[in-house]
Amino acid sequence: MKAISLAEKLDLFHEHWSPKIVAQLNDYHVKLVKVKGEFVWHEHIETDELFLVIKGKLRILLPNGTIVLHTGELFVVPKGVPHKPEADEECHVLLLEPKDTVNTGEVGGALTAPADSWI
Amino acid sequence: MKAISLAEKLDLFHEHWSPKIVAQLNDYHVKLVKVKGEFVWHEHIETDELFLVIKGKLRILLPNGTIVLHTGELFVVPKGVPHKPEADEECHVLLLEPKDTVNTGEVGGALTAPADSWI
Repeated sequence: MKAISLAEKLDLFHEHWSPKIVAQLNDYHVKLVKVKGEFVWHEHIETDELFLVIKGKLRILLPNGTIVLHTGELFVVPKGVPHKPEADEECHVLLLEPKDTVNTGEVGGALTAPADSWI
Repeated sequence: MKAISLAEKLDLFHEHWSPKIVAQLNDYHVKLVKVKGEFVWHEHIETDELFLVIKGKLRILLPNGTIVLHTGELFVVPKGVPHKPEADEECHVLLLEPKDTVNTGEVGGALTAPADSWI
């Protein structure tokens, strides 16, 4: 049992849109992801999803508008709500969601990442 | 629906050891707490508990040692494990736990805070 440094974990990978698990809380996973560019519109039918920006600026497009998150800001996308994350420059994000959540939700496609990638 | 700034929320209260809810994810609450000094030994029989240090330095005493968390570091106390948070100087912490979790667990006492304090 030891402290988990977000900065040290972020140094361990470089690919975009591929969340890495850094901690488990009951049946939830805390993940880190580096993002840049546009993700796909998707939704999670069974769960809310929390985004906390560790560094950079993230946009989350929603059906009725866009949430802009800067470092130290968070947003919870309610379950079932379509959303599309975007970032002009590389942005580091902490995600929190149930442990079997797939990054592309029900949509799938080329950007679908493994749901169980620990670092 | 809007971004939640951790810094803005932290500016809204000053008391120690009294977690404030800033977001809900399914049946979990994201809380912020300012701590200084010693808390009580306690445990949560039903749940793990996540501590993420936003600013400062936190010690979490455990039966077999002490975890030291600096800014940007997190630790998950497993359910049922006694723990005692301490901080020499004021420290700001993000907590994540199921929404009915009481800060003093099964122990109670003067430091018990309301489990449903939104800011």
